[in-house]
Amino acid sequence: MQKWAIAATWPFGRRAVEVGSRLLDEERNGIDVVEQAIRAVELDPTVDSVGVGGIPNYEGEVELDAALMRGKDLAIGAVAGVKSFPNPISIARLVLEKTPHHLMVGDGAERYADAHGLKRDSLLTSSSLEKWKKRRQRQVQITDERWGTGHDTVGVVVLDKAGGITAGTSTSGLALKLPGRVGDSPLPGSGLYADDTAGAAVATGCGELIMRGCLSYAIVELMRSGATPQQACADALGRLVARLEKEIPVRNAHQDMTKMAVLAMDRDGNIGAAANHADFDFAYCLAEDREVRLERAKMIGV
Amino acid sequence: MQKWAIAATWPFGRRAVEVGSRLLDEERNGIDVVEQAIRAVELDPTVDSVGVGGIPNYEGEVELDAALMRGKDLAIGAVAGVKSFPNPISIARLVLEKTPHHLMVGDGAERYADAHGLKRDSLLTSSSLEKWKKRRQRQVQITDERWGTGHDTVGVVVLDKAGGITAGTSTSGLALKLPGRVGDSPLPGSGLYADDTAGAAVATGCGELIMRGCLSYAIVELMRSGATPQQACADALGRLVARLEKEIPVRNAHQDMTKMAVLAMDRDGNIGAAANHADFDFAYCLAEDREVRLERAKMIGV
Repeated sequence: MQKWAIAATWPFGRRAVEVGSRLLDEERNGIDVVEQAIRAVELDPTVDSVGVGGIPNYEGEVELDAALMRGKDLAIGAVAGVKSFPNPISIARLVLEKTPHHLMVGDGAERYADAHGLKRDSLLTSSSLEKWKKRRQRQVQITDERWGTGHDTVGVVVLDKAGGITAGTSTSGLALKLPGRVGDSPLPGSGLYADDTAGAAVATGCGELIMRGCLSYAIVELMRSGATPQQACADALGRLVARLEKEIPVRNAHQDMTKMAVLAMDRDGNIGAAANHADFDFAYCLAEDREVRLERAKMIGV
Repeated sequence: MQKWAIAATWPFGRRAVEVGSRLLDEERNGIDVVEQAIRAVELDPTVDSVGVGGIPNYEGEVELDAALMRGKDLAIGAVAGVKSFPNPISIARLVLEKTPHHLMVGDGAERYADAHGLKRDSLLTSSSLEKWKKRRQRQVQITDERWGTGHDTVGVVVLDKAGGITAGTSTSGLALKLPGRVGDSPLPGSGLYADDTAGAAVATGCGELIMRGCLSYAIVELMRSGATPQQACADALGRLVARLEKEIPVRNAHQDMTKMAVLAMDRDGNIGAAANHADFDFAYCLAEDREVRLERAKMIGV
């Protein structure tokens, strides 16, 4: 039996793993798998931090970021600051496969999606609008609660039957972000990285901190040097936390300001994860038993 | 005498080095220095790949990307896909210093600049419009000449008198890019990286390839491990070229498709550079003699 493996961030990643594991078993390639797995989460209106039903920005508009990275040739497809499209991951795939570019943002990315026949739709739900109104009542200025709450990215890492490694992400970003704000999720090296010769990693949490340490790239490079996915996640995250604590009071401000979590997979489909908080769960499934499982990541000693 | 050092990409970086070296001598901090050095290049209409007079996108509009990274705390200020503002580096500084965010794109970034009193202005010059028309005549489809020509970012690395390390970038991006396309320049880890505890690096060339290897972060991490800036530049770029050649015919397509160059500085102000082509010049100035010099980077053996 050929090996395959898939893992996704957060309990809502279970849906991504269910969809993805079926496709992996059918020998579909990693790009297909990651796109379809993430689409399922984007279309679920009960997930309030991704796609339809995602958290609106400060002005009440849902702005989405998403990316795919193909480990075979390190090629990337990513979009940022995209409104009105329920599946930004599918625009990211168009960028990867149909353009000479890797990252497209804002209005240009939206018009590109229009030109390729993707349909616009409302992303607001009555529930997300209600939550937004309550948040706005508590937070009159963007700086009132600097880091908001809720910034949960769906990140997916996959080993397909052909040995291909792929990573993908999708998010509505930080709650009440300023319009145009982009976090780590669509940035290669920060929110995701994938290399067939080493492994893949994805990140979720405060994007501003994650991108300071290029966390996903750092994890993949540690795996290349021989670390297990678990060691690589704990080491890279631990180093970044230690480095930031020397210069800014990251733990004495809002707790949410330091929340970060990472998930990684090596070339053999082994999985690792780490967080600097106690409540990061991820979902995964392996070819061996095809069971979708949830596991709590180890908290690093910070 | 306290040490300082500044280096900038390309011969047009001479202007950045002239402006920056004067400010460094006056004990200004790295953020001030990098902003002012890059502003000088952005405002020079004869530099056809940065700021005013920059290369328009496929639809004839100039869209700019810029970023600053502060080595003290790894904080970033970056903007991407911004039209109508001659100095995107100053919007990037606002993002760094006035928002809880690190990257803002498109219309949201432009409205943020409006709200802070930055003035809009035309970025097109008669010369850049003329060049654009000629390019469009040759290139009817975006894919006709996939990688266009001309994608020269001004990248600046600085050691200030207080020992602070700062990096910055500004560019109009790839010639005839699709609207909304963003390259490596505003992406932390790809186009720039700065860490007071290790050094700084900036990149210029085909952004799509540079971001596949997180080149600037990779260089800084090699310096952290003991490599000289010169070794770090040559090693990181050499590894990426070797890795990509295994999977895609990067050298057999358009030559411009593989053009990349990097510039780095360590904590002591030592400078290194490398390119995978023969014509990358950079400018620099050191406190020792205050002479602005141009030097040609070594071409790596590819």
